[in-house]
Amino acid sequence: MSSTAGQVIRCKAAVAWEAGKPLVMEEVEVAPPQKMEVRLKILFTSLCHTDVYFWEAKGQTPLFPRIFGHEAGGIVESIGEGVTDLQPGDHVLPVFTGECKECRHCKSTESNMCDLLRINTDRGVMIEDGKTRFSKNGQPIYHFLGTSTFSEYTVVHVGCVAKINPDAPLEKVCVLSCGISTGLGATLNVARPTKGSTVAIFGLGAVGLAAAEGARISGASRIIGVDLNPNRFKDAKKFGVTEFVNPKDHDKPIQEVLAEMTDGGVDRSVECTGNVNAMISAFECVHDGWGVAVLVGVPNKDDAFKTHPVNLLNERTLKGTFFGNYKPRSDIPSVVEKYMNKELELDKFITHQIGFSEINKAFDLMLQGEGLRCIINMET
Amino acid sequence: MSSTAGQVIRCKAAVAWEAGKPLVMEEVEVAPPQKMEVRLKILFTSLCHTDVYFWEAKGQTPLFPRIFGHEAGGIVESIGEGVTDLQPGDHVLPVFTGECKECRHCKSTESNMCDLLRINTDRGVMIEDGKTRFSKNGQPIYHFLGTSTFSEYTVVHVGCVAKINPDAPLEKVCVLSCGISTGLGATLNVARPTKGSTVAIFGLGAVGLAAAEGARISGASRIIGVDLNPNRFKDAKKFGVTEFVNPKDHDKPIQEVLAEMTDGGVDRSVECTGNVNAMISAFECVHDGWGVAVLVGVPNKDDAFKTHPVNLLNERTLKGTFFGNYKPRSDIPSVVEKYMNKELELDKFITHQIGFSEINKAFDLMLQGEGLRCIINMET
Ligand SMILES: NC(=O)c1ccc[n+]([C@@H]2O[C@H](COP(=O)([O-])OP(=O)(O)OC[C@H]3O[C@@H](n4cnc5c(N)ncnc54)[C@H](O)[C@@H]3O)[C@@H](O)[C@H]2O)c1
Ligand SMILES: NC(=O)c1ccc[n+]([C@@H]2O[C@H](COP(=O)([O-])OP(=O)(O)OC[C@H]3O[C@@H](n4cnc5c(N)ncnc54)[C@H](O)[C@@H]3O)[C@@H](O)[C@H]2O)c1
Ligand SMILES: [Zn+2]
Ligand SMILES: [Zn+2]
Ligand SMILES: [Zn+2]
Ligand SMILES: [Zn+2]
Repeated sequence: MSSTAGQVIRCKAAVAWEAGKPLVMEEVEVAPPQKMEVRLKILFTSLCHTDVYFWEAKGQTPLFPRIFGHEAGGIVESIGEGVTDLQPGDHVLPVFTGECKECRHCKSTESNMCDLLRINTDRGVMIEDGKTRFSKNGQPIYHFLGTSTFSEYTVVHVGCVAKINPDAPLEKVCVLSCGISTGLGATLNVARPTKGSTVAIFGLGAVGLAAAEGARISGASRIIGVDLNPNRFKDAKKFGVTEFVNPKDHDKPIQEVLAEMTDGGVDRSVECTGNVNAMISAFECVHDGWGVAVLVGVPNKDDAFKTHPVNLLNERTLKGTFFGNYKPRSDIPSVVEKYMNKELELDKFITHQIGFSEINKAFDLMLQGEGLRCIINMET
Repeated sequence: MSSTAGQVIRCKAAVAWEAGKPLVMEEVEVAPPQKMEVRLKILFTSLCHTDVYFWEAKGQTPLFPRIFGHEAGGIVESIGEGVTDLQPGDHVLPVFTGECKECRHCKSTESNMCDLLRINTDRGVMIEDGKTRFSKNGQPIYHFLGTSTFSEYTVVHVGCVAKINPDAPLEKVCVLSCGISTGLGATLNVARPTKGSTVAIFGLGAVGLAAAEGARISGASRIIGVDLNPNRFKDAKKFGVTEFVNPKDHDKPIQEVLAEMTDGGVDRSVECTGNVNAMISAFECVHDGWGVAVLVGVPNKDDAFKTHPVNLLNERTLKGTFFGNYKPRSDIPSVVEKYMNKELELDKFITHQIGFSEINKAFDLMLQGEGLRCIINMET
């Protein structure tokens, strides 16, 4: 039992007081975990695009003051009533989508969209009592994605916590708590290329490169990267991407270019852009008879996916995935093991490292499209 | 060796001289099979919608005079050069799509869209020499779908012939050479519902009811039939359809009605209408997380399949299939066995039986939407 169990903890957190304004380092109060909750000491966190979208709150509902952050690694500080799977001291990754282990989705081998704990971007409170666990001078501060990892301590539902190998370096494996698992799982769990396949990856950000890493692990013979930004191609070489295609360099639709390069189409494609035209191209570029296209990017509200139904009748498959179809508690520990046994490479995703006090730099880097993942060390 | 081998055969055929005009019973000449071809004696044939579409030639390219017919059963009369898999006397089903066993599709376990022999509705000649094997007084008569079964004898590429159990009654199993296998395979091979699943079938014609038969064989707990024509519901009861929904009876989109009936969506849906709105509904009515929708209906040229990409991201799968993903030579013999061992019921699809001389009656029945399959006995 830690000496802080059952007590309010006062600690540092980076609070977003207003949309698009730099985060402010504050001393906040973190209440003890309630029923089925755990309180975590965060050691490392990183910044993901989703944090930035909701911090900018341009297309999204604004909710402030809020503590962002959802890609992280930490240690259990204390547990609430009813928690039996975790103990203080356990090494964990908090995850923005949960696994209650009770609902139809959790019981299905195919779905990870838990009815109780699936991602909810608008909720800023805990589901147990509809309240926040963060406050400053009595003013509640909202949660984000049920994780809020830009704080030295945070409270998370037990269903959103993956217990991992304590030997795994948290400063590396923390990136598995969102984007990297999403791209990796999109390829390994959903697209499932066989050895020797040709795979097209649309969008070479961190998610797309993780999808490429999945294709490399699967033994794909050709990994074709598609991006509008030629700067992405340099990084992508490290990820086993063998060819690059920039739609801007071609007059015809990119799906036709890919079909010509591959004698009729690629075996698998994974879309990691969020752009609906890229989604359509990613579908139409797969080979008839056996091609599978997987959508990962988050579209705009009014987008429409549009194709001629004959493209489907010709035996193409179209799927989408969320967090790479991984169930956080059941599956993420084994993804960490893939890193431990050197099957999965993570270090190449980590392009920057900074201290917690410099967190706004991570926002600047992402806004400038610099690098892939910036690790924030909570203790410096 | 039959006494007719190598000779031109003179026999009866129902010739379509003009679009939409009744077929005319003629004595035609059928040339011997060339390289990789076989000549079949047709014993039973039935009429499928595709014959009617191309006979009407409203949206389709007209090609006349032509001998229609592609759902049939018969016996090999003689074989051409290079044919080793078949011998005179073999019981067979000719199939409108073939299997060369050499191309990438034939070698793939996932595809049945043979590069050499996949369906070609516009070709009216044999691929070996670009000529017809049918003629009357020297005038060539075109083939249809490489099968042309409305003739006592016909010539077919060996890759389009399934050799079946000689004990199987051809007057029943002939319906497996097109529509019934298409619907059945769409469910068994592509949608693959597990025991206890809920399955929605859009369109309760012969193809849709065969899809329902597949759901029954799979042990689906609920089979929900959706059709605009309430007359279809009576027949459908015999096919294990447990509930009926007519979109005309509801103000809201039918996908919402189905979601309410099934606590969020069906596990599987199979679309057998050809109507693009039904295709969209069939996709959107499957449950998030694990739902799979399969499109079978043949759309119009200018149709667009349109949905919000979030419906895909929520882990739904969309697929299309052609001839139920069966490879005709490798797989159809075992579908015949399913009938022989009483796993598959075929008799309920056969609602009419007539003699060859009355073939135009089969067209009338289909145009009136009467019954499911009308078997034409070539010997009466
Ligand atoms: N489904 C999930 O669970 C999940 C989880 C995390 C992220 N995402 C989504 O995945 C997507 C990728 O995330 P990221 O962090 O890698 O983003 P990113 O912005 O770093 O990378 C996206 C890349 O796509 C490229 N791009 C944009 N439009 C394109 C087009 N039309 N054709 C080709 N390339 C195009 C951009 O140039 C960029 O390099 C985003 O939409 C994100 O919201 C989804
Ligand atoms: N993919 C293939 O390999 C393949 C093979 C054979 C047939 N087909 C196609 O399968 C489809 C069905 O064939 P069939 O012979 O059973 O046809 P059919 O005309 O006998 O049956 C179609 C049924 O769909 C119903 N329907 C039409 N629009 C609808 C809507 N919006 N909502 C609900 N129901 C609707 C009709 O009332 C009818 O009962 C056709 O499009 C045919 O071309 C495809
Ligand atoms: Zn759950
Ligand atoms: Zn993220
Ligand atoms: Zn082939
Ligand atoms: Zn047919």
